[in-house]
Amino acid sequence: MDVQGYLEESARRADAALDQRLPSVATPPRGLHGAMRHLLFPGGKRLRPALAFAGAEAVGAMPECALPVAVAVELIHTYSLVHDDLPCMDDDDERRGRPTVHIAYGEATAVLAGDALLALAFETLAEAAAPAGPVEPMRALAALRELAHAAGAAQLVGGQADDLDFDPARVDEAWVDSVHRRKTAALFAASVVGGARLGGGDEGALSALRRAALAFGVAFQIADDVLDDAPGTQECSLVSLIGVDAARARAQALLDEALALLEPFGGRADALRMLARFAVGRTR
Amino acid sequence: MDVQGYLEESARRADAALDQRLPSVATPPRGLHGAMRHLLFPGGKRLRPALAFAGAEAVGAMPECALPVAVAVELIHTYSLVHDDLPCMDDDDERRGRPTVHIAYGEATAVLAGDALLALAFETLAEAAAPAGPVEPMRALAALRELAHAAGAAQLVGGQADDLDFDPARVDEAWVDSVHRRKTAALFAASVVGGARLGGGDEGALSALRRAALAFGVAFQIADDVLDDAPGTQECSLVSLIGVDAARARAQALLDEALALLEPFGGRADALRMLARFAVGRTR
Repeated sequence: MDVQGYLEESARRADAALDQRLPSVATPPRGLHGAMRHLLFPGGKRLRPALAFAGAEAVGAMPECALPVAVAVELIHTYSLVHDDLPCMDDDDERRGRPTVHIAYGEATAVLAGDALLALAFETLAEAAAPAGPVEPMRALAALRELAHAAGAAQLVGGQADDLDFDPARVDEAWVDSVHRRKTAALFAASVVGGARLGGGDEGALSALRRAALAFGVAFQIADDVLDDAPGTQECSLVSLIGVDAARARAQALLDEALALLEPFGGRADALRMLARFAVGRTR
Repeated sequence: MDVQGYLEESARRADAALDQRLPSVATPPRGLHGAMRHLLFPGGKRLRPALAFAGAEAVGAMPECALPVAVAVELIHTYSLVHDDLPCMDDDDERRGRPTVHIAYGEATAVLAGDALLALAFETLAEAAAPAGPVEPMRALAALRELAHAAGAAQLVGGQADDLDFDPARVDEAWVDSVHRRKTAALFAASVVGGARLGGGDEGALSALRRAALAFGVAFQIADDVLDDAPGTQECSLVSLIGVDAARARAQALLDEALALLEPFGGRADALRMLARFAVGRTR
């Protein structure tokens, strides 16, 4: 299977579960429910759910094991986009060619929809580990803890806070790397490791997968910077600090590091390798 | 011990744990960390942590058992206040005699601080049940699931969404009751039941405690409406629909219902009875 096929199959699996988890627009409050669904359907590439499925496969489990993590991580990613687009944050009117949530539903509802998506992510994982649920409780708790940490002040929210009030005089490569790690790579790692946890991976495997995902997560964000590198479109990125060619080389080195970490997993990590190459391939 | 003493002791216990959980303002991003702490220290009455401790006591456990739920529920309550105060929501400049978070730290940081508090609530509960943690995993997962449900679209966020776009023509007693239940009583119930869960209460006890907490939670919100009942200060409340006297009587009937449900718990529910009377006593 090629990477597009893998992404499409992952998206089908994740979308069915997401649709089931999200409250219906036929029940009130309809505005809130519509706003929660607005950016989810149709969604993006569903890369993070695919990473969760590939994480489970890397430890020899069926990809379906990772479904609660795949759903939770897509809910967290979507909540962060809804809040990042707000007028007081990045003030974006459009995303993926459609009006952003606050344009379509108003600012208050967009704030609330983001909040509800975040709470739903944790409810989904906790429910999967309920006595009648499919997941072993200690695995679910560990995945939940790592996802909450990745979503919080230490990672996703902290990275966004730094990014918002960045000081050009203070920006250097270490600063950009730290923002990339927290805003993007931490959630990539929580996706892969969460999937591998639900698949029953041992601590050694989880640790290698975490390092690999952090490496290609940063590379993915550098790729984004390179793609965005039109004059005047950005104030601060690795590209503006070290130039396009050096940024591309950095991304390639991080990909190589990730692939080396995945070597011991053999054929089980084929999907993960494919997704990592896909993420960084966008720079070439 | 009287109710003030119980609240003070609960606050001391919760505050020490909250202070430990919150990131330090000495580490960056300082603005985010300051904003997360702004409304927490000094805090309010810490009624919800007290309810969690009293829930544990009601099933014969030490109040300290409930600490992870007490911390989580105060974080969720605080996040909801930070977001409710935003310009696009209730647009409040002051709370408890101090500037609101968005006035003190800016709107973007207030959104992010609320997000981080919500994620931290779930991280706290998941961490308490880690292999080295003090809490039995299935109890933590059940408490977490109920808290996430209470914080999400079905309850807290949904109630706030209805409250924001209420239609005077559509408002009746059932509508007000539904908003009270979701905006306030659900989190009261998750506090009491979560505390009792960590204390090892059985399903029968948890069910009675949930019904009691929902009843006096609604009564607490009616009490708030009665206290706020100055001409022109509100557009929609039970008081405006049925008058002050009938609202007081409704609150009293709900308190009586809660006390009857707590009867079988005997002396173990003394703290919970005291807190329930305190909440509704404010109407008299």
